[in-house]
Amino acid sequence: MGYYQAERRGGRLRFPAAFFGGDYNPEQWMGDKNWREIWQEDMRLMCKAGVNLVSLGIFSWAALQPAEDRFTFEWLDDILEMLAEQQIEVCLGTATAAQPAWLSAAYPDVLPVDEKGMRHKPGVRLNYCPTNEDFRRLGQDLVRRLAERYGDHRALRLWHVSNEYGPTCYCEHCAMRFRDWLKLRYGRLEELNRCWITAIWSRTYTDWEQVQPPSSIGEYSLPALQIDYQRFLSDMNLEGYLGEVAILREVTPHVPVMTNFHGLTRYIDYFAWAPHQDIISWDSYPRHNATPDMAAFHYDLMRSLKPRQPWLLLEQTPSQVQWHQENPLKRPGVMRLQSYQALAHGSNSVMFFQWRQARGGREMYHGAIVSHAGHEHTRVFQEVAQLGAELKLFESALLETHMQARVALMMSWPNWWTVENRHTPSRYFNYIAELQHYYRALWQRNIAVDIISPDQSLDSYQLVIAPLLNMVSEEQGAAIEQYVKEGGTFLTTYFSGMVDENHRAWLGGYPGPLRRTLGIWVEEFDPLPLGTTNTLFCLQETDDWRGSYSCEQWCDIVHLEGAQALAVFGQDFYAGRPAITEFHHGLGQSFYVATRPDAAGLDMLLNMLQSRLGLSAPLLVPPGVEVTCREGRLTTYFLLNHLPETQMIMLPEPMRDVLTRRVYEQEIQLPPLGVAILIPAY
Amino acid sequence: MGYYQAERRGGRLRFPAAFFGGDYNPEQWMGDKNWREIWQEDMRLMCKAGVNLVSLGIFSWAALQPAEDRFTFEWLDDILEMLAEQQIEVCLGTATAAQPAWLSAAYPDVLPVDEKGMRHKPGVRLNYCPTNEDFRRLGQDLVRRLAERYGDHRALRLWHVSNEYGPTCYCEHCAMRFRDWLKLRYGRLEELNRCWITAIWSRTYTDWEQVQPPSSIGEYSLPALQIDYQRFLSDMNLEGYLGEVAILREVTPHVPVMTNFHGLTRYIDYFAWAPHQDIISWDSYPRHNATPDMAAFHYDLMRSLKPRQPWLLLEQTPSQVQWHQENPLKRPGVMRLQSYQALAHGSNSVMFFQWRQARGGREMYHGAIVSHAGHEHTRVFQEVAQLGAELKLFESALLETHMQARVALMMSWPNWWTVENRHTPSRYFNYIAELQHYYRALWQRNIAVDIISPDQSLDSYQLVIAPLLNMVSEEQGAAIEQYVKEGGTFLTTYFSGMVDENHRAWLGGYPGPLRRTLGIWVEEFDPLPLGTTNTLFCLQETDDWRGSYSCEQWCDIVHLEGAQALAVFGQDFYAGRPAITEFHHGLGQSFYVATRPDAAGLDMLLNMLQSRLGLSAPLLVPPGVEVTCREGRLTTYFLLNHLPETQMIMLPEPMRDVLTRRVYEQEIQLPPLGVAILIPAY
Amino acid sequence: MGYYQAERRGGRLRFPAAFFGGDYNPEQWMGDKNWREIWQEDMRLMCKAGVNLVSLGIFSWAALQPAEDRFTFEWLDDILEMLAEQQIEVCLGTATAAQPAWLSAAYPDVLPVDEKGMRHKPGVRLNYCPTNEDFRRLGQDLVRRLAERYGDHRALRLWHVSNEYGPTCYCEHCAMRFRDWLKLRYGRLEELNRCWITAIWSRTYTDWEQVQPPSSIGEYSLPALQIDYQRFLSDMNLEGYLGEVAILREVTPHVPVMTNFHGLTRYIDYFAWAPHQDIISWDSYPRHNATPDMAAFHYDLMRSLKPRQPWLLLEQTPSQVQWHQENPLKRPGVMRLQSYQALAHGSNSVMFFQWRQARGGREMYHGAIVSHAGHEHTRVFQEVAQLGAELKLFESALLETHMQARVALMMSWPNWWTVENRHTPSRYFNYIAELQHYYRALWQRNIAVDIISPDQSLDSYQLVIAPLLNMVSEEQGAAIEQYVKEGGTFLTTYFSGMVDENHRAWLGGYPGPLRRTLGIWVEEFDPLPLGTTNTLFCLQETDDWRGSYSCEQWCDIVHLEGAQALAVFGQDFYAGRPAITEFHHGLGQSFYVATRPDAAGLDMLLNMLQSRLGLSAPLLVPPGVEVTCREGRLTTYFLLNHLPETQMIMLPEPMRDVLTRRVYEQEIQLPPLGVAILIPAY
Repeated sequence: MGYYQAERRGGRLRFPAAFFGGDYNPEQWMGDKNWREIWQEDMRLMCKAGVNLVSLGIFSWAALQPAEDRFTFEWLDDILEMLAEQQIEVCLGTATAAQPAWLSAAYPDVLPVDEKGMRHKPGVRLNYCPTNEDFRRLGQDLVRRLAERYGDHRALRLWHVSNEYGPTCYCEHCAMRFRDWLKLRYGRLEELNRCWITAIWSRTYTDWEQVQPPSSIGEYSLPALQIDYQRFLSDMNLEGYLGEVAILREVTPHVPVMTNFHGLTRYIDYFAWAPHQDIISWDSYPRHNATPDMAAFHYDLMRSLKPRQPWLLLEQTPSQVQWHQENPLKRPGVMRLQSYQALAHGSNSVMFFQWRQARGGREMYHGAIVSHAGHEHTRVFQEVAQLGAELKLFESALLETHMQARVALMMSWPNWWTVENRHTPSRYFNYIAELQHYYRALWQRNIAVDIISPDQSLDSYQLVIAPLLNMVSEEQGAAIEQYVKEGGTFLTTYFSGMVDENHRAWLGGYPGPLRRTLGIWVEEFDPLPLGTTNTLFCLQETDDWRGSYSCEQWCDIVHLEGAQALAVFGQDFYAGRPAITEFHHGLGQSFYVATRPDAAGLDMLLNMLQSRLGLSAPLLVPPGVEVTCREGRLTTYFLLNHLPETQMIMLPEPMRDVLTRRVYEQEIQLPPLGVAILIPAY
Repeated sequence: MGYYQAERRGGRLRFPAAFFGGDYNPEQWMGDKNWREIWQEDMRLMCKAGVNLVSLGIFSWAALQPAEDRFTFEWLDDILEMLAEQQIEVCLGTATAAQPAWLSAAYPDVLPVDEKGMRHKPGVRLNYCPTNEDFRRLGQDLVRRLAERYGDHRALRLWHVSNEYGPTCYCEHCAMRFRDWLKLRYGRLEELNRCWITAIWSRTYTDWEQVQPPSSIGEYSLPALQIDYQRFLSDMNLEGYLGEVAILREVTPHVPVMTNFHGLTRYIDYFAWAPHQDIISWDSYPRHNATPDMAAFHYDLMRSLKPRQPWLLLEQTPSQVQWHQENPLKRPGVMRLQSYQALAHGSNSVMFFQWRQARGGREMYHGAIVSHAGHEHTRVFQEVAQLGAELKLFESALLETHMQARVALMMSWPNWWTVENRHTPSRYFNYIAELQHYYRALWQRNIAVDIISPDQSLDSYQLVIAPLLNMVSEEQGAAIEQYVKEGGTFLTTYFSGMVDENHRAWLGGYPGPLRRTLGIWVEEFDPLPLGTTNTLFCLQETDDWRGSYSCEQWCDIVHLEGAQALAVFGQDFYAGRPAITEFHHGLGQSFYVATRPDAAGLDMLLNMLQSRLGLSAPLLVPPGVEVTCREGRLTTYFLLNHLPETQMIMLPEPMRDVLTRRVYEQEIQLPPLGVAILIPAY
Repeated sequence: MGYYQAERRGGRLRFPAAFFGGDYNPEQWMGDKNWREIWQEDMRLMCKAGVNLVSLGIFSWAALQPAEDRFTFEWLDDILEMLAEQQIEVCLGTATAAQPAWLSAAYPDVLPVDEKGMRHKPGVRLNYCPTNEDFRRLGQDLVRRLAERYGDHRALRLWHVSNEYGPTCYCEHCAMRFRDWLKLRYGRLEELNRCWITAIWSRTYTDWEQVQPPSSIGEYSLPALQIDYQRFLSDMNLEGYLGEVAILREVTPHVPVMTNFHGLTRYIDYFAWAPHQDIISWDSYPRHNATPDMAAFHYDLMRSLKPRQPWLLLEQTPSQVQWHQENPLKRPGVMRLQSYQALAHGSNSVMFFQWRQARGGREMYHGAIVSHAGHEHTRVFQEVAQLGAELKLFESALLETHMQARVALMMSWPNWWTVENRHTPSRYFNYIAELQHYYRALWQRNIAVDIISPDQSLDSYQLVIAPLLNMVSEEQGAAIEQYVKEGGTFLTTYFSGMVDENHRAWLGGYPGPLRRTLGIWVEEFDPLPLGTTNTLFCLQETDDWRGSYSCEQWCDIVHLEGAQALAVFGQDFYAGRPAITEFHHGLGQSFYVATRPDAAGLDMLLNMLQSRLGLSAPLLVPPGVEVTCREGRLTTYFLLNHLPETQMIMLPEPMRDVLTRRVYEQEIQLPPLGVAILIPAY
């Protein structure tokens, strides 16, 4: 499928202990008179906090190369020595996330061009064209020097390529590269015209040079072009990443390489990038009012990107951020709970942005372990240091684990671009929110979930849920059918199976290549106005399948072609028509949800699936308590109380809490925001 | 008044039957392997649906001319033959609504420039500068070839020039043409300075070259310039249209010519364009939550553009559109009801966009007669085919009718631009909504309404209503006075009679040239903040003139100069001052409404006018039932039930329903969404 | 501190009477056939209205210089003569607020460039680059001709330079001037890098040419750059102003010079401009729903800009404006009340925009003394004329007064830019609203307030209130400490003392240089989400310090370092921590308010301060009545009733009302919107 097929194997991280630390930018302080003392104070405080890893040099290009022909590595030599003396290891940045001012001035084409054709001006970060040759040449030159100078340094643990990728550009050079990319994908221009159906509105291309990137003041109405351009942008960023990676793997084959993901970057297809990471790392910045399942969703996605391997929580704020409209403090205990939640979902690290609060710039009010006050006598420092001390209790056996879910949630970046492109019949689609709607229902039941791409094997799953799977290729449809025929359970929803991988509508009847698997035909769809709802009525009620529920967003008009209705709509001219269907196909079964049920309806649906498939939580816990299990030499249970009241959990056998070393025979009480990490007691 | 004075007479359409069909884009399917079968299937299904006219070739430029020096008419030859064999006629597009990619590449100046000076990029449709010479030359060359090749084809019924006009541009060439346009309008630069009052803010032009189009980053504060530029844009689009029309009339003088209007295009002055259409056609896309009077308003406008002639409903969706935030389905029966409503207001056709649903592009989810499923076994196809069968019952005698209203609603594009220009005392003006406010009050009473321009003769009307007539020329004011003096009834509202045709304030006292006709002087006006209301109190209460009503938006402070107050304001420092006035002038009378009454107040006002003037509905019907009358050899009544309950209508004489052929002696029952088309039974 | 240090002394205005009149633009009417009669009618009506001063020629550049080499002063000669004959004096504009069309055409670089790099097009006003040399050269040439021609004209009273300054630009020339400005401020590039902390994100400048203005598509993340650019823009506008002023002072040293401020222009630092004005003048356009304290706030700011001198109310509308979303009329009496409120706060004039309503253009619906009706028989004209007659009663003794407050509110433009820059921890900061929140609490108690800059002497004040004083330099902090030590009372709030004058965070503990003065350390801050509140509980309750109050926006976590808590927070994890503190330092005291109390809480705080410091109103009046005192040879009390009911005020001694000449022995009744101006009766 992808542009970059091969998975390169790099070094693999071992975990004698959990990583603990954060981003460290000592060069920001070299303008201060007393910067040497500040650096010394950093060392003292890092030891005090229990830091064992820092991310260094992420934005140091200008500090390392103040002119094209001049390099100043000496300060980095010094700080690496100072860290090494404290046994603090380094995740070393390639420093290419922000080019120096001299570079933008000497090579103005490095600056990206927006979709209207306006070239950016110098400044900020990630402000470069992802295909620019000069940027790549100069960046790679720096990377080679860093690798050669520090490849054998005793402090070096991990390479950190660039930072939070995501530049976009629409310049002439990108347009030229895009055409080459399209030639690879489509071969002949006639094939591109056929796939994009350019005959509509007379847009047939008769020369490759006529193909331009999408633009809001040009071609904005071809979903296929838009989706291909998103694919292209992800690939071009990946190409830039791989350019640096190739050098690092050549010069330092023993050192693992990665770049840090953050949020869910629309422009970067994580599934396509994951094979090229030696370890997955992620920057976690949940909104102050995000529910805990939202962090869990992201953590599970990171975990799933490299199955059976740990990942790294590389950044989070110890207290607050500064970039939202409102940036309240994390309340006492929240940072600790969120950190353990990451471990509970497979992370082997707790890292922060950043070590010392910046004195200026955009992020000067972003929380840090060491605040502007400059000392350790703050609530935040104390909470961090306490956590650092606790993490020392994590032995290697607790970290060499894996997690395998029996349930998968299917997600895909091209499908995201498709579902949210501006020409769909409803402008209210929010693909990630829909995934999280289903994820939340599973999370509340403490059912472990992998988040997988439609191109991955489904063999190891009992249940695969694929909400809003609008884009389905012939091959993907066949693989899903094969999975069901062999005994799997597959669930999908409205607006699925409607377009192929080139965004051409499936003809002959929706849901296209899923139609036979689901045993239905969707004749029509009715996107509901905001605020309008319909009702779902369960048919053939049983104990775990009953009631009526509100639904919204969309109603399909479904014909049964072998499937049977589990629920029907209650209103409108399609009252009584199927709303949820079930179909037995081969050894397996499939479900279709023709609307968006409310949370209670979804809970009932999951309840039914859970009891049919025998899915269970690791431990039985009260609502609001999260429990996960990491399997390895020791089976480790993570218990997290997200509620403001103490919760009691019954234990099936005596267990020991890793943090307190106490043994609990029958039950354990978790205080508000409390955490327990339990292993078999005997 | 206008830039293009002459009305060219073209061919006139005859109607042996109502047209039924839709947009047909067979070239979209030529990329498919089995496109020949698809075309054959189209023919079969068209016959099944009762299609007798298709709009063909609207966006086929690239398919007809893949390079500047290469033409490929063969496919069009074929499809025209296939259609002709089925006795399906063709409304043939000139294919100039979207230029091919090669054209934009070869002539980059064809692309329009926005008001900030940024040139568009290629793509989408209607994406050209309306004054560009190369676009016109190449387009006209194609038109000539089409006319010469197909002018005598037996399938050709009607020319369809371009599609839904409306391009705007602010390029250097437009600026140059604008200056020429201004020279024609104003003669000398001194006269332009005088009319635009450029002495304000030192903007006096001393050379024609200094005159630039309006721009939000330039001259955005001269309403006169903005309004003239809107006039200019409408004229330049018309000039482009006439360029194609001239060729068609030269080569095929026997074939009628038109372009299709849609919605209410701000940039296109329909009144100025109408004389150059051989028949008016319109694309109807009411919002899902639009009330039925809104469609009626548009239908009546289309009907009024060419008095005493039928018009064509050229596009509507059979099910749903895809371009709004929310695009619910038309419920069963709604499409039929809306189609008959068009006929009830003078249309002689029911056409759809489009025949076969597109497989890609922006409109791929737009409803079509033949959906992606590709066959006739769908609700939508069945409803369309049923309607097609019904329409066969319409004989020529039912179609050769006219409609003449006794009431006119005055509307003007320059006045629209004026009322909604951004420098008025209230930013809450919505000219069309205000017209529809008055229209609705008439529609609810089933009083037939013409919608006319201030430049048309008023002689045939008992009552002329001109809401928000802000811009009134000396001549228009005189014509209105003459109309009243000779016995007419004229009603206007607040914010009227304030500027002349060049947007210069009328001095000496508002409402300027209407002051003598109305017998009032408006000393001050008080634009009300949103949410603020005042109250209207009726004076000299009678049975059909009584009560108090809420009003909003604006209150004038009116002095009576001969008029008398019919209602007064209830609050604020102008409590007790006239809110509605009446004046007897010559043989007629005039009314002034100094505020925006709520719906109940407006209903009372119309009630009073109706009883005074003896205006009546064609039949007496319950509220929610619409009734219109088409006069001709047969008097035909259209009854439309917009309610979800069955309605009973008493008949003054026995009548036959054209659709069912049943005779009703005294009464007829209309089911929900039901329609009856009644002619005298004997 | 400032870029322009020297205060030039110009002529000083004397006030034999209050100025009364308005903007007069006779050249707008020279396009009319009967313009001579209109001018004559203007003279008659001005005398009728009591006009004694008009602002003339503000936008007359094109009328005075229709081509670069041609001047047409004759019409101005004429109108000056006509005015002089009527004993009407002139505030003569330099006509440079809007350049003629020929100038923009001949010198296209005169047009400003926006922050994205897009150059404006010609048109509107204030549409020039503030550093452009051609604009300045041509403008100064015109100014010299005006000064030489009219400097000795008997009608000339005052020079009015440009109008409502505020152009911004980001062109290459501005960038070059900005670099020079930065060199003056920082000396070496290394110092700029150190102060802006450019090491963050690798933005270190290695050549001055790399420094660019801020841009939303370039460097938008450096608050220090943004704030310096705002300083620069204010300085460049001032430089342009001073260029004209220098000529006027050279040619006409006897004539006072000023430009008119309006609203609170973000781009113009009024404190930096005030020393270069011979008199402060202001254009007053309160929103229709503004409370009277908001006008008072602005009036007091104008008064404070030149201590102990009167200022001029140069513009206000007699009825309504046209530029808001909603533009209701000023109700009868409101214009009079607002005019006297200006006099009550130190103005010696009541002037209007404008004399005669414009016939076209953006402001054609803006209210005027003479409306489009063109005569005096209107409510508005009558109210104006009545006021003009009243003002004749103001003798010189009433105008030669001063006002000195004992309370100061601290305000600063750089602090405004800082508090509202987009990278603060809360996007809900509204600096002016916060100042007005405190101002309102004082105003409601009729406590006179000066509004001062942090760089002014604090010696004459008992109480200094400095809300949101985020930016505090070392020197400012020291001055405040010195003031408190010597006995002053200082109050500041949350988000204060956090950055220095270059926007670098204060290290070591907030509030930086105010920490010792306040006796506290702010460890953390918690920006509250919108709609979230906390509670303030007063400690050690007394009669004038008790209760609990809601607070919002922000809560600091405060450590007491000598201070004591006056109130504590009621909720969240910092419940019980100090919310308001008090500290005795030297002979004085300081207060810190760690949140935003609601109006009741602020009133309680002011109540406590008032009783402690013995602050009193000039007279005891009921709530809703405003009272001020102008001191001079006569002590004059202004009583203003802002309520719709009559109010009774008890007098401490018999007083005479200047307007009615009546003597009141013990009490006076003020009707709704009524005014009394009282002097000692005997």
